[in-house]
Amino acid sequence: MTPSSPFPKPPAAAAVPSSPADGIVTDREATRQAREQQVGQRPGTLTVHEGALPPRLFLTSYDDKTCHEQEYTGRYDELMDFLRAHPGLKHWVDVRGYNDLPLLERMMQDFGLHPLQMEDVLNDYQRAKMEVFDEHRLFMVSRMTDFTANLEVDDDQLSLFTGPNYVLSFQDDYDDCLDALRQRIRSNFSTLRRQPSLYLAYALTDVVLDHYYPTMAAIGDYIERLEEAIFADSRPKRLLNRILRIKKDVVRFRRLVYPERDKIAEILRLPEEIMPESLKIFYRDAYDHAIQALDLAESYRDNISSLTDLYMSDQGNRMNEVMKVLTMISTIFIPLSFVVGLYGMNFQRHDDHGRLLPHNMPELYSPWGYPVVIGLMLFVVVGQIYYFYRKGWLTNR
Amino acid sequence: MTPSSPFPKPPAAAAVPSSPADGIVTDREATRQAREQQVGQRPGTLTVHEGALPPRLFLTSYDDKTCHEQEYTGRYDELMDFLRAHPGLKHWVDVRGYNDLPLLERMMQDFGLHPLQMEDVLNDYQRAKMEVFDEHRLFMVSRMTDFTANLEVDDDQLSLFTGPNYVLSFQDDYDDCLDALRQRIRSNFSTLRRQPSLYLAYALTDVVLDHYYPTMAAIGDYIERLEEAIFADSRPKRLLNRILRIKKDVVRFRRLVYPERDKIAEILRLPEEIMPESLKIFYRDAYDHAIQALDLAESYRDNISSLTDLYMSDQGNRMNEVMKVLTMISTIFIPLSFVVGLYGMNFQRHDDHGRLLPHNMPELYSPWGYPVVIGLMLFVVVGQIYYFYRKGWLTNR
Amino acid sequence: MTPSSPFPKPPAAAAVPSSPADGIVTDREATRQAREQQVGQRPGTLTVHEGALPPRLFLTSYDDKTCHEQEYTGRYDELMDFLRAHPGLKHWVDVRGYNDLPLLERMMQDFGLHPLQMEDVLNDYQRAKMEVFDEHRLFMVSRMTDFTANLEVDDDQLSLFTGPNYVLSFQDDYDDCLDALRQRIRSNFSTLRRQPSLYLAYALTDVVLDHYYPTMAAIGDYIERLEEAIFADSRPKRLLNRILRIKKDVVRFRRLVYPERDKIAEILRLPEEIMPESLKIFYRDAYDHAIQALDLAESYRDNISSLTDLYMSDQGNRMNEVMKVLTMISTIFIPLSFVVGLYGMNFQRHDDHGRLLPHNMPELYSPWGYPVVIGLMLFVVVGQIYYFYRKGWLTNR
Amino acid sequence: MTPSSPFPKPPAAAAVPSSPADGIVTDREATRQAREQQVGQRPGTLTVHEGALPPRLFLTSYDDKTCHEQEYTGRYDELMDFLRAHPGLKHWVDVRGYNDLPLLERMMQDFGLHPLQMEDVLNDYQRAKMEVFDEHRLFMVSRMTDFTANLEVDDDQLSLFTGPNYVLSFQDDYDDCLDALRQRIRSNFSTLRRQPSLYLAYALTDVVLDHYYPTMAAIGDYIERLEEAIFADSRPKRLLNRILRIKKDVVRFRRLVYPERDKIAEILRLPEEIMPESLKIFYRDAYDHAIQALDLAESYRDNISSLTDLYMSDQGNRMNEVMKVLTMISTIFIPLSFVVGLYGMNFQRHDDHGRLLPHNMPELYSPWGYPVVIGLMLFVVVGQIYYFYRKGWLTNR
Amino acid sequence: MTPSSPFPKPPAAAAVPSSPADGIVTDREATRQAREQQVGQRPGTLTVHEGALPPRLFLTSYDDKTCHEQEYTGRYDELMDFLRAHPGLKHWVDVRGYNDLPLLERMMQDFGLHPLQMEDVLNDYQRAKMEVFDEHRLFMVSRMTDFTANLEVDDDQLSLFTGPNYVLSFQDDYDDCLDALRQRIRSNFSTLRRQPSLYLAYALTDVVLDHYYPTMAAIGDYIERLEEAIFADSRPKRLLNRILRIKKDVVRFRRLVYPERDKIAEILRLPEEIMPESLKIFYRDAYDHAIQALDLAESYRDNISSLTDLYMSDQGNRMNEVMKVLTMISTIFIPLSFVVGLYGMNFQRHDDHGRLLPHNMPELYSPWGYPVVIGLMLFVVVGQIYYFYRKGWLTNR
Repeated sequence: MTPSSPFPKPPAAAAVPSSPADGIVTDREATRQAREQQVGQRPGTLTVHEGALPPRLFLTSYDDKTCHEQEYTGRYDELMDFLRAHPGLKHWVDVRGYNDLPLLERMMQDFGLHPLQMEDVLNDYQRAKMEVFDEHRLFMVSRMTDFTANLEVDDDQLSLFTGPNYVLSFQDDYDDCLDALRQRIRSNFSTLRRQPSLYLAYALTDVVLDHYYPTMAAIGDYIERLEEAIFADSRPKRLLNRILRIKKDVVRFRRLVYPERDKIAEILRLPEEIMPESLKIFYRDAYDHAIQALDLAESYRDNISSLTDLYMSDQGNRMNEVMKVLTMISTIFIPLSFVVGLYGMNFQRHDDHGRLLPHNMPELYSPWGYPVVIGLMLFVVVGQIYYFYRKGWLTNR
Repeated sequence: MTPSSPFPKPPAAAAVPSSPADGIVTDREATRQAREQQVGQRPGTLTVHEGALPPRLFLTSYDDKTCHEQEYTGRYDELMDFLRAHPGLKHWVDVRGYNDLPLLERMMQDFGLHPLQMEDVLNDYQRAKMEVFDEHRLFMVSRMTDFTANLEVDDDQLSLFTGPNYVLSFQDDYDDCLDALRQRIRSNFSTLRRQPSLYLAYALTDVVLDHYYPTMAAIGDYIERLEEAIFADSRPKRLLNRILRIKKDVVRFRRLVYPERDKIAEILRLPEEIMPESLKIFYRDAYDHAIQALDLAESYRDNISSLTDLYMSDQGNRMNEVMKVLTMISTIFIPLSFVVGLYGMNFQRHDDHGRLLPHNMPELYSPWGYPVVIGLMLFVVVGQIYYFYRKGWLTNR
Repeated sequence: MTPSSPFPKPPAAAAVPSSPADGIVTDREATRQAREQQVGQRPGTLTVHEGALPPRLFLTSYDDKTCHEQEYTGRYDELMDFLRAHPGLKHWVDVRGYNDLPLLERMMQDFGLHPLQMEDVLNDYQRAKMEVFDEHRLFMVSRMTDFTANLEVDDDQLSLFTGPNYVLSFQDDYDDCLDALRQRIRSNFSTLRRQPSLYLAYALTDVVLDHYYPTMAAIGDYIERLEEAIFADSRPKRLLNRILRIKKDVVRFRRLVYPERDKIAEILRLPEEIMPESLKIFYRDAYDHAIQALDLAESYRDNISSLTDLYMSDQGNRMNEVMKVLTMISTIFIPLSFVVGLYGMNFQRHDDHGRLLPHNMPELYSPWGYPVVIGLMLFVVVGQIYYFYRKGWLTNR
Repeated sequence: MTPSSPFPKPPAAAAVPSSPADGIVTDREATRQAREQQVGQRPGTLTVHEGALPPRLFLTSYDDKTCHEQEYTGRYDELMDFLRAHPGLKHWVDVRGYNDLPLLERMMQDFGLHPLQMEDVLNDYQRAKMEVFDEHRLFMVSRMTDFTANLEVDDDQLSLFTGPNYVLSFQDDYDDCLDALRQRIRSNFSTLRRQPSLYLAYALTDVVLDHYYPTMAAIGDYIERLEEAIFADSRPKRLLNRILRIKKDVVRFRRLVYPERDKIAEILRLPEEIMPESLKIFYRDAYDHAIQALDLAESYRDNISSLTDLYMSDQGNRMNEVMKVLTMISTIFIPLSFVVGLYGMNFQRHDDHGRLLPHNMPELYSPWGYPVVIGLMLFVVVGQIYYFYRKGWLTNR
Repeated sequence: MTPSSPFPKPPAAAAVPSSPADGIVTDREATRQAREQQVGQRPGTLTVHEGALPPRLFLTSYDDKTCHEQEYTGRYDELMDFLRAHPGLKHWVDVRGYNDLPLLERMMQDFGLHPLQMEDVLNDYQRAKMEVFDEHRLFMVSRMTDFTANLEVDDDQLSLFTGPNYVLSFQDDYDDCLDALRQRIRSNFSTLRRQPSLYLAYALTDVVLDHYYPTMAAIGDYIERLEEAIFADSRPKRLLNRILRIKKDVVRFRRLVYPERDKIAEILRLPEEIMPESLKIFYRDAYDHAIQALDLAESYRDNISSLTDLYMSDQGNRMNEVMKVLTMISTIFIPLSFVVGLYGMNFQRHDDHGRLLPHNMPELYSPWGYPVVIGLMLFVVVGQIYYFYRKGWLTNR
């Protein structure tokens, strides 16, 4: 992981970390998405969701010799002037934050975007997808994942539009996980600068795919810690909840990555004139990465199902142990209690008339009665303990 | 959600709401459907099911300049006259209620509909589907969903026929969830009024899709409340029933939405001359919505299965707790009972001849016998309680 | 359901009906089928299975003006003469019962049937299928279902051969569920009489599909009754068996209907010259029906799986309840028994020499000892009962 | 089943038969196969596995008029001479046993077989498959199944090569299940003798398929007996093992039959010049048979899963029953023990000074104390028994 | 297994072997893979992972007459000189160890390899795949498996590049499992030496496939031992863990082999000019092997799921046994304790005034009271033991 990676491993890694949302196994995020959908609205209506940030504009312009980086926030006209003035450079226009509808509408006009596409950009929950428009331009949506300290799979959207000599990218917050890519552009010897602007779109997609691995690794770490917790003496509270909730996260991750894989597969099927073979070889590599991420997710699903089995079996074992304690105590003491009760009976040695009744509990009148009974009981107890030992009840199975 | 949304969130949302039908996990609606099917009837026979409403007729006629809305209930001839008189306008003929066979038959004739199609319109349980007829006209069936206060997924049918300059829609009750759309038509600046009448058919389908989200959100809310109920101290009665029944609802929802998605996929495969590319871009958007709704449903299914696991495990935990109480009480008191029984034995200090039997329970004659035994028992109890504490039996796991 | 429906709802519907075969969850019918297969026989060998009935012949001849019905049992030659004499009519030759090999062989010759096809007709367990032979003739096998009073899904075979102006149908028993269709032919205004003979083949298939609904409805009724039985106070014996066996029935039904759906899908793919578009529209309707029946079956499968979960959880609850009774009784009385045992100890007030031992159980000699102990025990009992009440153990769950 | 059937129903059918291998649920056969594979060997290397039999050669030559059968074991040259001398006859060369590599190599040369094909013949575990070689010749491998008295699904391999006027078959033991077919060839009126030699290959495949049914029937019988055993009073030992092991057998059977079905499907897709339509009609019949066998296997799998559910639930019921006995005994006697313990307390009637303590257990001094207590206890017992009876605990569930 | 097999059966085969990692059911290898992925790196960047070995170079050159083997470690120039000097020979350049980036870059130049391909070679976790490059050259990745003494499925990567007269292979360690193949090349009569160099690529792939069998056999052995352990008297600790972990291994194996099968299927679809039919026949054989390995893996998965069922049921049985012991002891002794408690009551024979109370426990004063009570209790015990015997509780189920 490079030091500038925006997705550090969650620090709450000591023992099974708990979080405020710990134990929530249902996918409340999904319900929130459903709740925010507007009914009956005109398709293509642009609505900026609450709490959106005002947009910042970044421009990176390069060719194999030069590289120019500048922030144009609030100066969109200047940005367009620069673009028009340098048709020979390749441009990456990076928009972060959506909260400026008039600006977005101007961009739609200037860059020739469809309202439905812009609606997809603003819609936070758009699945990864790819569309060809204007015959040979591409519109791509990717979902970047993150495993938060809160133990949730968080996902952000990266939307891309390609043009003849530019790539337009939209993100909804200022945090930017594309820094590693920016570094590569700055470097003089980067092959990226020699490639057409379409390659930049690939590179952006590839960065998204690369971010799946830290997410998966964090999930994997958590699963390992859950496994250790199952057999810990003091099993943490709501352990099954945590197992089921990480399962929810893995399921969520899969639902995010599957469309990404399908998107890349679709790109690979594009005709030569839209996506040249020399770039497809890179997408084939990306496809391998997406498959590998899904393989990992499958693997985790199997692991979690094994953990659930272990948990349930361990629950059974603990019950078994409780029952063994009860059974041993009862088996040892209930017969003894009978014996002592026996000699607590009040059968009388003499009847009402004072006649000796010799058959009534003569043991009580024997000089060694008490020690013999005590000895007998000790013998029974030792025998029972030996029996339990042989059954393996004393050792903890 | 717009204020005019006909599908408000069910108000019975405080705690896990119960309903008369609460706890019914089998799909009685399905059985009712099966029971109402007629055996051996001629295909294309129009039967109006019991309790159907007399039809009301609404006409909305518009072009980019004018918009005309009128109810023609009982005045079908006038409606047809108006249609014929204004071939330049686009018309939306909205029929609500079916209980007038002669009228329906006249409409079949006037609009060129096939009896089998009209049978599908009247059949309340038709899955979503799309058919091309008369070379380029479309017949579409959609299913609108609702999550009732009764905690059932309710569904109504919307059937559409397209024509050169009109759309014919059929619904079986007067409640109409298409109001949001009507609002859009009324608006002077609506793009809808500039589009061909085929776009209206799309807009109607889109409203149906939009209604899936409030249904899903209501289901999601209910699932969240069920999760909270599992660990509540006083677990409500028949909780598993409720979990299983919401599962039934989700399964039902999926069965309704899958054909909808397939229908749209089929529309996307229609040739250019029936469905122009400029409209397909909207259907592609609708397709994304259908997929997203199905994703949500999958997500809920996973959640419900996790809830079932939690419920079962919690049931086991409660049993475990009962057993621990029993075991602790028994383990503490059964040995003590033995001890007190021991010193309740009647071994005699003297035999029949009055001779002292010194080995018979000398403890009973020692001055500190009783306090020592009491102390011993206290010691054992304290030891046991410490043992249980260490085992974590005293704290609730 | 029409009064002439041959599949009335099973009358044994009061409470969960039991039957001689009640509780048989394995599919013995399947094994019987396997056992009756002949090894090493020449394919196309006609074997009439034991207990087959002698064939009865029925002829229905019609065109749009006339309709002629007659039984020709034992008069096959006359039937053929009639057929040859009226090439302008459409004929439905209905054969019920197979027990006359020479007749069958003559029919094979006269109607140009292949021995393998006739073997399929006689084979009681042929899955639904469709074959084109002689370039444009169709051979179709359908399976009709019935839910018997014995709670089994029963199925009978209907085999059809189409010809230029006739349809040949074969059934293995005299009971005939095609009566509703016969009624329609008799009616003067039936569209059926105006359609080509290929339409009759469709109508026969459609009747078979129609019969799936009463079967499903009967199964659905039974499932509903099972659900009610799970929580009944006196749960009937072998309830899980009944649940599993209705599951077997549903699985069986699905295995019968799947090939039917595939058959119709194949018919829809037939070229125009074999199956004209004007008939395909009807088969498309039939396809919808088959899909709907399968949807119902899926729905029932989900219901049954929910019932199994409920049953298992209820079994756990009942165990829980037993354990609670045991635990409450033990928790209340075992400590009390200890107390009374304590004061049953025989520590002596005086030693062998008559000296007072003041520390030995002074309570026994206090004037209010007994009432105080009784009070103490009452207090403990009340406390425990309050604890159980708070835990919700006294109320049932 | 014909009397000459080589697969009689296993005789060990009384009650649930056990066998030496009873209770082995893992597929040791599969592991044995894996263990015997050679690593790093040249593909096409012929290795005869240990214990192979020396080959016996049988020749059946026929046309529609003559039929000639002879064993040529050890006289391969004579056999080839006969073949060459009678090019007009159709020949079936049947080789049983492989233990003669030089002979096999000569045959490969004489009949033009590929070493990889011969390796497949010798490999005991080859899945069913079909290959076209030399443009229009076929190489087919089938697997014959048997359900042994040892309760295992046993399978043998039948390999076929077709030629212009001959079929070459290879089996690995002398027992031969093709006798039924031989009978049909001998018969003068057999259609088989009029058909081309390719039909013989079909007939051989068909015999293999026919043998699936007795295997399935035997498995079905065993499953039925297992079901009866689950509820038997004295449930046999290791019943779950037996259920799981028959499951293993069914799974194994499916794995054998699936490739067989695929093989036939591939044959049906062969072009007309390799497989004429007149023969394909027979393969279509065989395809139906393979599907039906797989349907049966699916059905058995469902049955076995139901049996597992029943077993588990019955295990729970038995536990429940044990707990009820414990609870009833405890509930009845623990309170009674308390009562008798109560009156076993030694509260003294007089204090150390001889003063009467009237509050100490006056009951003990009442003339009817004892009978009243006995009566009270009887009353409690009767009440409890009535309670248990009402709960249905006395009747078995 | 040949003596030179590099994958001997793990020696730790006595009883269920345990290992340091024993009981780890989660796939930590997968998480390690995820963790090592670099974020944001340029695709095609060559990174040698830590601990890589310095490369050793081996050259095997042959034609049908000569065979020349030599190690060229550190003498890459000499190797290239030899290759260029002998264009008529077929060459196998075998590189083991990657830790020399400059060398790898020179090889990329000399042999015309793409950086992305070399990245796949160095990436330890690349799935099996096949790519065509330079129009007709092949790049293939295979994964070799091993079942370590540590009970893990270990996998190594073999990467191949084909050229006009050479094959280039890369492995990451010096251990080499291709020795069997080398032997075959050395042999004068090997067909391998007569085949084109493309055949060598096949032979290498085939060796990889051959190694799947010892892995599977070792897994199978372990599964068999687990089965025996389930019913062993002293069930080893963490048995379920072991079952679940071998399941993880099988799942892992499947994930390795599936892409291998797909790779071969892709090779079979290559056009004739890249992969001639004469070689495809060998790949078809390899395909059969891959399918068979996957069949085995499926079979093991079924076995493991059966073992889990057995384990769970056995856990239930052991609990049942514990409960039976408790119930029998309680049922026998609790009533007896009541009886002896009964006669331990202190109902007085005389009241405070010395009057005889004849109804108070006259039994205590009867001469045979004690023996009668003892006899009665013996009778009850014998009756109960007989009842338990009849229930089958005494025999171990």
